Amino acid sequence: MGSLSFNTFSPLDPESFSEESKMVVDFIADYYRNVEKYPVQSQVDPGYLMHHCPDTAPYCPEPLETILRDQSPNFFGYFQANASTAGFLGEMLCTGLNVVGFNWIASPAATELESIVMDWVGKMLMLPPSFLFSGGGGGVLHGSTCEAIICSLAAARDKVLEKIGHHKITKLVVYGSDQTHSTLQKASKLVGIPTSNFRSLPTSFSNDFALCPDDVRAAMEEDIGAGLVPLFLCATVGTTSSGAVDPLEALGHVAKAFKVWLHIDAAYAGSACICPEFRHHLNGVELAHSISMNPHKWLLTNMDCCCLWIKEPKLFVDSLSTAPEYLRNSASESKKVIDYKDWQIALSRRFRAIKVWVVIRRHGLDNLMFHIRSDVNLAKRFEAHVAKDPRFEVVVPRRFALVCFRLRPKEEGEGTELNSRLLMAVNGSGAAFMTHAVVGGIYIIRCAIGSTLTETRHVDSLWKLIQEKAQLVLQEPGLALEED
Amino acid sequence: MGSLSFNTFSPLDPESFSEESKMVVDFIADYYRNVEKYPVQSQVDPGYLMHHCPDTAPYCPEPLETILRDQSPNFFGYFQANASTAGFLGEMLCTGLNVVGFNWIASPAATELESIVMDWVGKMLMLPPSFLFSGGGGGVLHGSTCEAIICSLAAARDKVLEKIGHHKITKLVVYGSDQTHSTLQKASKLVGIPTSNFRSLPTSFSNDFALCPDDVRAAMEEDIGAGLVPLFLCATVGTTSSGAVDPLEALGHVAKAFKVWLHIDAAYAGSACICPEFRHHLNGVELAHSISMNPHKWLLTNMDCCCLWIKEPKLFVDSLSTAPEYLRNSASESKKVIDYKDWQIALSRRFRAIKVWVVIRRHGLDNLMFHIRSDVNLAKRFEAHVAKDPRFEVVVPRRFALVCFRLRPKEEGEGTELNSRLLMAVNGSGAAFMTHAVVGGIYIIRCAIGSTLTETRHVDSLWKLIQEKAQLVLQEPGLALEED
Repeated sequence: MGSLSFNTFSPLDPESFSEESKMVVDFIADYYRNVEKYPVQSQVDPGYLMHHCPDTAPYCPEPLETILRDQSPNFFGYFQANASTAGFLGEMLCTGLNVVGFNWIASPAATELESIVMDWVGKMLMLPPSFLFSGGGGGVLHGSTCEAIICSLAAARDKVLEKIGHHKITKLVVYGSDQTHSTLQKASKLVGIPTSNFRSLPTSFSNDFALCPDDVRAAMEEDIGAGLVPLFLCATVGTTSSGAVDPLEALGHVAKAFKVWLHIDAAYAGSACICPEFRHHLNGVELAHSISMNPHKWLLTNMDCCCLWIKEPKLFVDSLSTAPEYLRNSASESKKVIDYKDWQIALSRRFRAIKVWVVIRRHGLDNLMFHIRSDVNLAKRFEAHVAKDPRFEVVVPRRFALVCFRLRPKEEGEGTELNSRLLMAVNGSGAAFMTHAVVGGIYIIRCAIGSTLTETRHVDSLWKLIQEKAQLVLQEPGLALEED
Repeated sequence: MGSLSFNTFSPLDPESFSEESKMVVDFIADYYRNVEKYPVQSQVDPGYLMHHCPDTAPYCPEPLETILRDQSPNFFGYFQANASTAGFLGEMLCTGLNVVGFNWIASPAATELESIVMDWVGKMLMLPPSFLFSGGGGGVLHGSTCEAIICSLAAARDKVLEKIGHHKITKLVVYGSDQTHSTLQKASKLVGIPTSNFRSLPTSFSNDFALCPDDVRAAMEEDIGAGLVPLFLCATVGTTSSGAVDPLEALGHVAKAFKVWLHIDAAYAGSACICPEFRHHLNGVELAHSISMNPHKWLLTNMDCCCLWIKEPKLFVDSLSTAPEYLRNSASESKKVIDYKDWQIALSRRFRAIKVWVVIRRHGLDNLMFHIRSDVNLAKRFEAHVAKDPRFEVVVPRRFALVCFRLRPKEEGEGTELNSRLLMAVNGSGAAFMTHAVVGGIYIIRCAIGSTLTETRHVDSLWKLIQEKAQLVLQEPGLALEED
């Protein structure tokens, strides 16, 4: 393996590139083969890695073998992979070609492929044509929902401040529910909206933790009465805690009445809406100004990838464009092309479109739907396990591939302790990893199906493990706790 | 090639993963082998790709061979690659492991490796200990300078508004020079600072386009006199247009006197400062609050990667943290660990640290310095070519690997047309791609050395091409123009 010797220096020699890359491919394939053998949650203490690493960078190069040897999969306790071979291949192409497509002229292919792919995915979700390039709107790939919301918020903010004056920025109000992802609050604060102007409206069991349009209307009226300016409403399709779905159509009408920007965050459950039987969750999307969903969550696309569509792309450009001399070019000035730098936060951008493009082509819509349905069926199976055991209950109706359940407490006040002990016992075993949430004051355990490698047997084993640990927790809570 | 058949569906099967990944490795290696044969700038018209793609996603999966066949390197006109095999391998590991390390508990390894690597790079740059974890500060990996500046700006903004009240957000002022990257203006606007409160202070030939500390002081005094609040000063080490370096130490004293946050944007030239002979450009860094540099620009790290250090990490957390119930965990509550989600914009994050870690280990500091020095030597060679030809002049003194030059116009008024024609003729040939800038009113052509595959013969050929096109442009400007 002469090309791996480390006294030469050729940072991008095609021969050693090929040889070393294949070593890493084998390393990762081995990792996938053996991933079940490793504990799911790292059993390490803070600072553990400091003891394994020198505190300064090596002066001389090291051979790849040495570097990979240090890279035990044991290091990665938490493996939440909505990954696929196609997603990996797409990412390899993105990285290998290393295109920096901030504007059209920098990479016409990266720009145009992104537009094409965004129309493809938009059509897969049956978005109204007004969100597609072919219908006057358009889409862009971001890394995360937070970036997508920041850009939408900034566009909404600047459109309103243009009319009422920038000094009114402290009057703008943003609305979501207590189930909306925390990213909305973070984004609002980042774009300069006072935290006191963020409304986290309460939801309840009675309507499955969906945002109530009447509550939104009332909150907006109250804010207007107080001299504030309602700006932005975020509705969620598939909340993080419980998979709740906000009523888009009714919220859309409220947003319209108050001239408020409606954004739909379909980060998680948007992927399911490529299946006709789930598409109704997006009914009302035509009333929104923007919508985002994350293929990296549930559409076999490796991190990171967030799709964002908008009906009026001009509003992104108005808010986010910069035109320094060193980026001027005749293509941009012709206004016939898209410069994606003006649709996002950063100037530089990775060629994520090629990843989505490979994922879609390699799987086809057919298999992508199959993948969603398989996960939903696994979740149904888990839900059935829970329902059959009278010690347990499914707390929130399952809509997608997330099951929210708990051990029934003898008295309501004991529910949190009982179930947090159960969760610690399960995670402490190292054989599975789940997380919790609190909805309507109730502590629930979340079983989120969606890891690409999960099969029926894993779901059944998980349930068996939960039952075993439940027995311990119910009998001798102290014992189970000590395992953690 | 049974595993490539497309009537089965196994999105992450280790055998087909390995087989298909190696096909892509070969594809990318071929691309590197042949990259010289392709035109450097795409000669395509807006919308060209629409005609090559179906307007909806395929329903059935396609074999990888078909997908790669569509993927001609001809599509990628602009190849600005500070890539390396090690950077690619690191990115493969990041993608293959698909770690989503938003907080410590989600991936202790990703979190701790990032802290270790940030201290490594900090020491390579000889940053003061106050920027390292080992000295009470710390570093984080972002995707771009814009994100790094947004987080620094938000931290600075919230620290000040905490004292003077959020309604004063419209009084905050941000300072840079007319050479500062446009990202500062974009970031300022994004965090809610009025565009009228952005100061782009003029620079001039007389001090090599560096920001003048006296001008900053005067601007701040004037703003205070007008009831405004100076907030943030951005100094640049290696500007985009001409590679200028702002005087950090003097600016640091001004920032201190006005209690203003000083950020250093060393996106481009920071990489050079790992070499002792360039380190003096960072003198004064000890007076800054934060500093960023991009290994993806000049340190053999594939896109994307921006290092950001801060002396008081608590200020990031104060400004950016969210703590929803579903992310609560005992590790975070112990305050003994870093949750990087509170040091950046998004919640989710890729495992970029493993990429930097592989790049540093595989090359060693020794070869990284060799790489910088090679590029600088190539730039010196190009500069010498320019200096020897009396028709040309080097307009701005070269500091790093960027040479700013032009054809001397007979009359100053003709300089822009003459040189923009020359640039169009060179780029129009498809054999090379350069960009322009305007500094001190003068149109310059930028020859930026830094692509990993650039060798002496490429620099010499480029110069020959420039001379040929110059001859045409000087004799018959009309003819050369038509070539574009």
